[in-house]
Amino acid sequence: MKRYLLLLLAGLSLKAGAQSTELQSPDNRLRLWVHLDNEGHLQYALKFGQRDVLQPGTLGITLKEPNVDLATFRLVDQKVTSHDATWTPVWGEWSRIRDQHNELRFELEDRSDAHIRVNVLFRLFNEGLGFRYEFPEQKNLQHFVVAAEHTQFHLSGDHNAFWIPGDYDSNEYPYNHTRLSAVDATVGDQHTEISTRSIIGPDFVQTPLMLKSDDGLYINIHEAALINYPAMNLHVDKQQHLLQSQLVPDAVGNSAYLQTPARTPWRTVIVSDKATDVLAATKMILNLNEPPALKSTAFIKPQKFVGVWWEMHVGKGSWDYAGGQVGSQQSSRVPHSANTANVKRYIDFAARNGIKSVLVEGWNTGWEDWFGRWKEDVFDFVTPYPDFNVKELHAYAKKKSVKIIMHHETSGSVTNYERWMDTAYRFMKLFGYDAVKTGYVGRIIPRGEHHDGQWMVNHYTRVAKKTGQYGIMVDMHEPTRPTGLQRTYPNWLASEAARGNEFNAWSVGNPPAHETILPFTRLIGGPMDYTPGIFEIKMSAYDPKKKEQVHTTLAKQLALYVTMYSPLQMAADLPENYEKHKDAFQFIKDVAVDWDDTKYLAAEPGEFLWVARKAKGSASWFAGAVTNEQSRTIEADFSFLEKGKTYLATIYRDADNAHWQNNPTAYTIEKRRVTADTKLTLKLAAGGGVAISLVPVK
Amino acid sequence: MKRYLLLLLAGLSLKAGAQSTELQSPDNRLRLWVHLDNEGHLQYALKFGQRDVLQPGTLGITLKEPNVDLATFRLVDQKVTSHDATWTPVWGEWSRIRDQHNELRFELEDRSDAHIRVNVLFRLFNEGLGFRYEFPEQKNLQHFVVAAEHTQFHLSGDHNAFWIPGDYDSNEYPYNHTRLSAVDATVGDQHTEISTRSIIGPDFVQTPLMLKSDDGLYINIHEAALINYPAMNLHVDKQQHLLQSQLVPDAVGNSAYLQTPARTPWRTVIVSDKATDVLAATKMILNLNEPPALKSTAFIKPQKFVGVWWEMHVGKGSWDYAGGQVGSQQSSRVPHSANTANVKRYIDFAARNGIKSVLVEGWNTGWEDWFGRWKEDVFDFVTPYPDFNVKELHAYAKKKSVKIIMHHETSGSVTNYERWMDTAYRFMKLFGYDAVKTGYVGRIIPRGEHHDGQWMVNHYTRVAKKTGQYGIMVDMHEPTRPTGLQRTYPNWLASEAARGNEFNAWSVGNPPAHETILPFTRLIGGPMDYTPGIFEIKMSAYDPKKKEQVHTTLAKQLALYVTMYSPLQMAADLPENYEKHKDAFQFIKDVAVDWDDTKYLAAEPGEFLWVARKAKGSASWFAGAVTNEQSRTIEADFSFLEKGKTYLATIYRDADNAHWQNNPTAYTIEKRRVTADTKLTLKLAAGGGVAISLVPVK
Repeated sequence: MKRYLLLLLAGLSLKAGAQSTELQSPDNRLRLWVHLDNEGHLQYALKFGQRDVLQPGTLGITLKEPNVDLATFRLVDQKVTSHDATWTPVWGEWSRIRDQHNELRFELEDRSDAHIRVNVLFRLFNEGLGFRYEFPEQKNLQHFVVAAEHTQFHLSGDHNAFWIPGDYDSNEYPYNHTRLSAVDATVGDQHTEISTRSIIGPDFVQTPLMLKSDDGLYINIHEAALINYPAMNLHVDKQQHLLQSQLVPDAVGNSAYLQTPARTPWRTVIVSDKATDVLAATKMILNLNEPPALKSTAFIKPQKFVGVWWEMHVGKGSWDYAGGQVGSQQSSRVPHSANTANVKRYIDFAARNGIKSVLVEGWNTGWEDWFGRWKEDVFDFVTPYPDFNVKELHAYAKKKSVKIIMHHETSGSVTNYERWMDTAYRFMKLFGYDAVKTGYVGRIIPRGEHHDGQWMVNHYTRVAKKTGQYGIMVDMHEPTRPTGLQRTYPNWLASEAARGNEFNAWSVGNPPAHETILPFTRLIGGPMDYTPGIFEIKMSAYDPKKKEQVHTTLAKQLALYVTMYSPLQMAADLPENYEKHKDAFQFIKDVAVDWDDTKYLAAEPGEFLWVARKAKGSASWFAGAVTNEQSRTIEADFSFLEKGKTYLATIYRDADNAHWQNNPTAYTIEKRRVTADTKLTLKLAAGGGVAISLVPVK
Repeated sequence: MKRYLLLLLAGLSLKAGAQSTELQSPDNRLRLWVHLDNEGHLQYALKFGQRDVLQPGTLGITLKEPNVDLATFRLVDQKVTSHDATWTPVWGEWSRIRDQHNELRFELEDRSDAHIRVNVLFRLFNEGLGFRYEFPEQKNLQHFVVAAEHTQFHLSGDHNAFWIPGDYDSNEYPYNHTRLSAVDATVGDQHTEISTRSIIGPDFVQTPLMLKSDDGLYINIHEAALINYPAMNLHVDKQQHLLQSQLVPDAVGNSAYLQTPARTPWRTVIVSDKATDVLAATKMILNLNEPPALKSTAFIKPQKFVGVWWEMHVGKGSWDYAGGQVGSQQSSRVPHSANTANVKRYIDFAARNGIKSVLVEGWNTGWEDWFGRWKEDVFDFVTPYPDFNVKELHAYAKKKSVKIIMHHETSGSVTNYERWMDTAYRFMKLFGYDAVKTGYVGRIIPRGEHHDGQWMVNHYTRVAKKTGQYGIMVDMHEPTRPTGLQRTYPNWLASEAARGNEFNAWSVGNPPAHETILPFTRLIGGPMDYTPGIFEIKMSAYDPKKKEQVHTTLAKQLALYVTMYSPLQMAADLPENYEKHKDAFQFIKDVAVDWDDTKYLAAEPGEFLWVARKAKGSASWFAGAVTNEQSRTIEADFSFLEKGKTYLATIYRDADNAHWQNNPTAYTIEKRRVTADTKLTLKLAAGGGVAISLVPVK
């Protein structure tokens, strides 16, 4: 750390009482301006080259207990430092990540009689800006309550936005693509398929918010290191194109309970004139998170899995023993899926195909009335249904070298889950489970708390820590949106926290553009358990009356294993459906889940994505492209490959007559030799994609 | 059970559509009238002989999810049964308890389109009435929310009442004695020494509510078997002397979440023309509770204990290691009390005096900022302060045949306690603890929940169950008021749940009448850990500047061991204070804590109490009398003793010049022989008392 470099450009200005400071990114493309005006209001602005990213916007926080509005400040000190270091993630898109940034610590004291000390810490990366509020230890402030945070993001125009409604409980909306001035979050009310919605109001959106300016800037606003604080929504002032933080309240209307020394999450602004830079800027989010707290990470293994799961979504089987709980809209009783024989069938399939593990949902008692009741004592997480033989399956899976993934659906009754957690994790270790999928479907208990409030944020990190202590990997469904905490808790492999593939089985589903937006929004914060790999695309296969379908071609489902980064990837379809397309399934068997390198080659949010990744510890690459409802061609340049090497490319592409709606399962598999000099035109059907494996020829 | 006896007196009346039923108590003194009027409103009334106890009052409940106001009903069926059985409590005031009552089950269907079935079950004992709502399993109602309960107690006049403010969080108020029409619960606002107050409004009072009518009836209104439901407060309509149930709301304003089959607690009305009958009617409360759920009760041992506790209240030592946390108002730092050497001193004292156990508070980390912060992660219940050697003290106590009582102060952060409970109880078993005192000082977390709401009620029973499973006895401080659950959970030995002796150490304290009211109010529901036995009565002994004192004579402190029933009795003062009065301390050493028989010989609420109890499995008796601020004489009749036997009575009485304020420690000990024919005039000083041990002469 070298302090007081030339980075401090303007220093204190000469205007009476007012003070300004500027900071540049390491590559000098980004310029941050921080300003205290005569009245002590704190403002900041950001430029990308000559273009305004953020116009002056104010910063502040209102406290309760003590009641102090931190709105006007005196500058106590400012410190500028420069950082450049490289670190190795336990798993990820890159095997080495560089953390290069310049930092400005603005040390302030509020102008009220309370004399509260607060720092604002700015870090400027080449990818964008992160800043947070810090409350150092001090006599005038120990325990306190945050009533509201007033962080502004003052955009330079009425940008195009990919947004979902600001909501305290759900992030499972499809994305809207409008000008900011046209945001109307009440469209979310139509999505009655989302079980627990708490839309804040018409003018609120969630982060990660993806924006594109008319002058060609791609801007992403989100947060990093969301710990011991509620998630942030954004209020949209449509006249001034001004976004302002709106924290998720708790049961009594407060935002956060803190004790000094305390700090907020980082507020992040990623910016570039290239869309692909935004995708790669997940590095910046990771850099704003702390290194792992775990001593041993040997138990953490990126993996693919199958699961007793999709068959409940499509209505072939049920979660509950009584046979009534299915994902699709139907009233008939069906067999209980998580029975010993059926689980063995999945274990056999996984073993035959080199799939590491089998998720089993609906194995434990409680599913008959788990949903929508706000019931507290639903599951105990250790009592199997009578047809699920824990010991027998443990032995069987062990013999087949397959792991069973535990499932802990809490139904939102988190007080109940917390009572059982230790017992449940001990049960897991006793019966050989080393990974758990958790779920939070429904209204939260403690009643009045929200999925995205501080109490639940603390619960998620508590689960991540505790599972880590037990040597257990975790995959959370229905948590708040990720903010890069997978760096600190690498056993927290993935989250759902967005609208997953499952919605296609029993609702209006996800439009073909969905998977071209998620990498620019939800995935900025961390890996998603999207559950790709659906080969039986139309639900009419299960019931002729059904009209639901996955809005995809089969080839696109393969491409998602590359375009939607996750160290935990499900092969979500039924074994019998994979048996029908063994040639296509080969890609799922082959594709890696952990990477040495990632190249975002071409992309446009809402339109398409073209990505290549080098498998970790291997010379093989995997590449994928997906498109929205438009068919398109991608001029694929393979210069990312090692010069002078020849690779056998196996190309899983849409057949020429493929179409997501009319002909989704038409695909073609081609093999050809390619080198770094090869250029190919890849044709993607409407709602289609292409997946390529690239294995060096010996 | 004999059904359809002659008990059904009036049967269905002949008025068009209206239906009336009457039921009598086994001794025919009480008469219940239940009535459905033409519109279907359900009413009930109660007579004691010819005197009205309750005039017609209506019954009903408003539901949410589904939204149905259960206010008008159709009678589906009515069943009358008669019960007479005797059972043996694990411990108590009597070794055998007779449960004799007549029961009317009024089976109703609500007149709305919801057709919800609800039963009202009335049980009429000689001591009074209990009734509850039952929601049987039915197609039209499974999971539901109780929005409000509309149970009326329509009194016959503007009775004198002993009341404390209706409050969702605290029952630690001193009692008020006024006409019902003069109730003003805002007086509770003056009691700033109560850390967490949530007074409902000026017209609300708590139960047990003790009333006396101008025509000489003693009436007590309370509830029994408070399980999975919020506690009930009472709204006072001062014009109509009509009390109506006001349930404690949860964080979102609901009252209870239930699932059929479900039932409310019993609403109880104890009535007699003798005050002593009310004291003995705790039997009725017990009879309305379920038998023990525990298989083994061998670990449950009524006992006396001393504790590292009062020295913190008087400011000699602190709970926290830093030395700042004391009960009295002082700012100076004092030594940390729960240090190994000091605890050994208490163990030695207990061992020397045949006291079974030593409570140690302040042994674990977290006390520095435990109070008033609404902080969630305060204590972990397993980490001792560095000067408290768990292993060494375990060995030392074992050698001395003394048990250490664990202390779990939660500071109201119950989510945190629930996470740690299993770990904490395993820690206890590992280090030889078999009893725990819990505490709930402060605002509850989950935030928005109240001490007396359904969520906390469920917590208390969860603690009772779980400690029972671990073979641990429990004493709860700051829970909701007891309702006889000690029958079902006999390991739940006692609760505080009222204004205890501790308030005398550092606040305006408790007036001398306090202990003459508690047996008629708080103790109706169950034993109280009142912590009697203070010999150093004036706090000026610790600090000449202090004006606080216990409002008592020393002799009265001894009498409390008999008049305030509890199977868990603290000898609350410091060992060095007992050493100064070894002759008086002899009574505390001798007095029993479990009883074969109890005789309430004379009493008047707010004035005095004269009680005799026969020690369990022994021929010895112990008797006690206490008075309010008035000195008085009691004509003591010893006819409760076994005829023909002679007893050596040791009488610990106020000296002739004793007075609670001027001369509290003046006492006289006399020995004399008494028989069943003996009559004595006992003189009680102002704020005084008398304690007598009666040992058969061989």
